[in-house]
Amino acid sequence: MCDLCVIKSVKEKMLSRRDVFRAAAAGAGVAAATSIAGTLPAMAQTPAQVLDLTHELSEDFPTFGGEPGYRVEKIFDFAKDGYNLYSLSIDEHSGTHLDAPLHFSADGQSVAEIPVDKLVTPLCIIDIKERAADNSDAQVTPEDLKAWVAAHGDIPNGACVAMNSGWSAHASSDMFRNADANGVMHFPGFHIEAVQMLMEEADVAGLAVDSLSLDHGISKDFAAHYAWLPSGRWGLECIANLDALPPSGATLIVGAPKNRGGTGGPSRVMAMV
Amino acid sequence: MCDLCVIKSVKEKMLSRRDVFRAAAAGAGVAAATSIAGTLPAMAQTPAQVLDLTHELSEDFPTFGGEPGYRVEKIFDFAKDGYNLYSLSIDEHSGTHLDAPLHFSADGQSVAEIPVDKLVTPLCIIDIKERAADNSDAQVTPEDLKAWVAAHGDIPNGACVAMNSGWSAHASSDMFRNADANGVMHFPGFHIEAVQMLMEEADVAGLAVDSLSLDHGISKDFAAHYAWLPSGRWGLECIANLDALPPSGATLIVGAPKNRGGTGGPSRVMAMV
Repeated sequence: MCDLCVIKSVKEKMLSRRDVFRAAAAGAGVAAATSIAGTLPAMAQTPAQVLDLTHELSEDFPTFGGEPGYRVEKIFDFAKDGYNLYSLSIDEHSGTHLDAPLHFSADGQSVAEIPVDKLVTPLCIIDIKERAADNSDAQVTPEDLKAWVAAHGDIPNGACVAMNSGWSAHASSDMFRNADANGVMHFPGFHIEAVQMLMEEADVAGLAVDSLSLDHGISKDFAAHYAWLPSGRWGLECIANLDALPPSGATLIVGAPKNRGGTGGPSRVMAMV
Repeated sequence: MCDLCVIKSVKEKMLSRRDVFRAAAAGAGVAAATSIAGTLPAMAQTPAQVLDLTHELSEDFPTFGGEPGYRVEKIFDFAKDGYNLYSLSIDEHSGTHLDAPLHFSADGQSVAEIPVDKLVTPLCIIDIKERAADNSDAQVTPEDLKAWVAAHGDIPNGACVAMNSGWSAHASSDMFRNADANGVMHFPGFHIEAVQMLMEEADVAGLAVDSLSLDHGISKDFAAHYAWLPSGRWGLECIANLDALPPSGATLIVGAPKNRGGTGGPSRVMAMV
């Protein structure tokens, strides 16, 4: 039995708070929740608060490549024309944005082809802030995943697993890229073994990071990207505000663009708790 | 007492289905729902299904002005570079998109300044398909609003009121703009009197239309835009798939871009029922 399965097996013997809730609701004559593929009970049944997990996109928002990824040009002006309108130039992978499978594959799903119910997911947050404060090259490891499952139960089917490394606090400074004298960046990401574990032992829709890349900054092989995206799963980069959420129980909403043939793009990301 | 208030007063004397649900849940020891400003009980308590209300954005998607509003250029190619990436040129008001107050005002809220909880709203759908099939210049009128309230109860605080004119079915043809020999467009929108009624007698966050503009196509004065947007409320244009939703009870999610100083932009719009 795999590591995550053992923990899952133990958890299944316990009557979870969720089950108690369902039983109570059913007992009161309320229809039992049958949310999307059984994955959205928290959102379907508990009071909702909406939180914004999106950085403001601007011409000076840091990018992986270092060049501006977003430029604006005013085309119409209210004083002169009666209304305001801008033309935008956007590199797809700018700001808080989604990586579609097509970003790192020859013929994977484009951002427009990801089914909308894969964009509304249970959110599992792995906190590595303490380690990342000491080591900018820190990664989410299999041990981190096992610790999360031990503390919070199995990873829900169709979930997004997010790294909270504390890096979103650096989004308005050079520390976000944290490039050394040789131009090599240093920021946290997912270790390839954690990625493989999630692919083999869980049913996860997406990964999210609060840094610039699924792979940590010093990666030369983009191992996380090349394993994860071609498998038909998505990634979110530069997510914000994870500190405001519980490690388990929130519902993520990824307002990804629906651009034909797109490899991803700036997304409005929210959470409901 | 205003028209909408009379209807509301009658409705308040009835114990709504929502109240029964709340009472049952509270009776079972489950905390009563206290969703955002009391406006999201349906999402908070009932099974959820996610629907996509967004048209795919492409270079040939119709625009109000008639010129393409979206252009793509491939910058990196998987076969050659190991990954795919496009650069995008986007006119803010292209595809399924949001109008922020700043679009039609000197200093209204930009799209990035709209609080995220104003982007997740109860959705009220006004169906004028039959009338619009006979008359491309049809508008949502005060009578339509009164009929909706009589049938479905008061408009929830913070709601989005959406016009379903059947026009989304035309999004891939010239019928979407429906320009006559003089270049004048003919498609449905909101009558200024309906807009004023919603501003004066309800507490509505946004309007949505399944056509190219809040104002119907033949409008010369953009009366709906100039009344609604400067009042600090938003509009959604080119929304899709409203036929899949009930007239009342769905929750709208507007994944608007968070572009600094933006007047709006292509948005991923979803609904939960």
